[in-house]
Amino acid sequence: MRFLRFSKDGEVGLAVGDGKSFHGFTASQEGYPGDLTPALLTKKDVSDLGEALSAGEQIDLSAIDFLPPITGASKMICVGLNYADHSKETGFKVPDHPTVFPRFASSLIGHEAPILKPRQSDQLDYEGEVAVVLGKGGRYISPEDALSHVLGYALFNDASIRDFQLRTPQWTIGKNFDGTGAFGPYLVTADELPAGASGLSIQTRLNGVVVQDANTRDLVFSVAALISDLSQTLRLEVGDVIITGTPAGVGAGRTPPLWMKDGDVCEIEVEGIGLLRNVIANEDASQGNAAAEGKHLVEHR
Amino acid sequence: MRFLRFSKDGEVGLAVGDGKSFHGFTASQEGYPGDLTPALLTKKDVSDLGEALSAGEQIDLSAIDFLPPITGASKMICVGLNYADHSKETGFKVPDHPTVFPRFASSLIGHEAPILKPRQSDQLDYEGEVAVVLGKGGRYISPEDALSHVLGYALFNDASIRDFQLRTPQWTIGKNFDGTGAFGPYLVTADELPAGASGLSIQTRLNGVVVQDANTRDLVFSVAALISDLSQTLRLEVGDVIITGTPAGVGAGRTPPLWMKDGDVCEIEVEGIGLLRNVIANEDASQGNAAAEGKHLVEHR
Repeated sequence: MRFLRFSKDGEVGLAVGDGKSFHGFTASQEGYPGDLTPALLTKKDVSDLGEALSAGEQIDLSAIDFLPPITGASKMICVGLNYADHSKETGFKVPDHPTVFPRFASSLIGHEAPILKPRQSDQLDYEGEVAVVLGKGGRYISPEDALSHVLGYALFNDASIRDFQLRTPQWTIGKNFDGTGAFGPYLVTADELPAGASGLSIQTRLNGVVVQDANTRDLVFSVAALISDLSQTLRLEVGDVIITGTPAGVGAGRTPPLWMKDGDVCEIEVEGIGLLRNVIANEDASQGNAAAEGKHLVEHR
Repeated sequence: MRFLRFSKDGEVGLAVGDGKSFHGFTASQEGYPGDLTPALLTKKDVSDLGEALSAGEQIDLSAIDFLPPITGASKMICVGLNYADHSKETGFKVPDHPTVFPRFASSLIGHEAPILKPRQSDQLDYEGEVAVVLGKGGRYISPEDALSHVLGYALFNDASIRDFQLRTPQWTIGKNFDGTGAFGPYLVTADELPAGASGLSIQTRLNGVVVQDANTRDLVFSVAALISDLSQTLRLEVGDVIITGTPAGVGAGRTPPLWMKDGDVCEIEVEGIGLLRNVIANEDASQGNAAAEGKHLVEHR
């Protein structure tokens, strides 16, 4: 199953489908089960949810805005340096443990929404990644049991403002500009994919040119290893998102560097999960003001 | 006003008071306005909330568990290296910009709850800090306007597992062990304190011995500067928490290092805000299992 969060005419909706055809409800329709949140996942079995949504009307994908596939996650944990070739290109050594930083919800956008190039920097870089959404929390999870905690997978463009990422010892700020965390297009349940979403081709294209081309089997820490390792130190919770890291090929690792700019199109495609596409747009004065009012981006959450 | 979140007989409650006497309601009582969340702060004016709570019964402080003063914050942003003398003792240079890492809600506990020394490490360190809770969000906030976005202040013990904090280039994991983020005892509204909570004595005591002794006027980035600087890159939201950094004197900066252990008592006191007190307890097998079930710590959130 694929779960799709969307907005239509200012209303949030939720649908289920096979990637081409989706059925579901918007919030004001009878039968709407609620937004896809940790609270809903705690209350409702996923196959029941899929069945309930499939009774809804067919969704016209050309008439909706895609939203991040889950909202209200208690934490979104990004893993850095998790492909050996990417560690090499950025001058870091391959870590002995997952290198972890946060994504705050305020930075998220959906499929087809613009990634915002901020006023303050030209160093806007792409990072194609697989995101894991947990269906079950826990601590001290063994690697053997870890994959039973996965609800499904989605794509993530961990777009980064490199100068801000590296201007202090911690990367958080450069990873959390508004309008830089593209998350979607939908959530693919784990049963549709190989165990741990391993062995999948992952590709990032900028304006149609392949800039990252790898395979998820080359993760330094597999999905199971990440879940197990993280749960040794902190409690994972239903709906938590783990963003697994990006392979080699980022713009910062090139000579000269390759930065994304207004009008560019960035696509991330992972076999079996889908295609996440975003155009780049300059954050202009009106967008900045809208963001200040909390208007512009709220619709994409 | 001081807003106090608590639990009593398994129910969440909210009260208002002067630090000594509090009045309020538990969730099942008529008059309970809802939990102190960003959603409530969006809906309700703070002085109205205070007035409503003051009609409730007097709270017996010896019969409650203190909870973190706000829950459901969209982000909790910790600022590192924000007192020059602390940067020096840890071997970092004073940064040109705020150095930022996250606190996840899963790590939080309230006043008088045990700080958990994890199984995996003995390097449990204290960090006394002032936390700022925002009452209004925004972007591109000017330093002059920044303090109008503050709802109030509370205390924070950003207890850190030093070996885990430094085992990768990012500090997140060592800052987010379960049961290490003590937050409380209550929220003091901004009108009760000097502008930006500046000029206040801040002291951390371990087993009665003063180990950190400073003044909030020595923040490298003031509260106003932090709000303004952060809002240049990301959208701040109602209920967001900014944890402003710790002064010199941490255990890791001493020779030999001073780590907190089972049975120790750590107190953080800031003039006008209050006293945050936590005992240290070994995470034992039963606690670990309870945490795995999500039971142990949920009651403290």
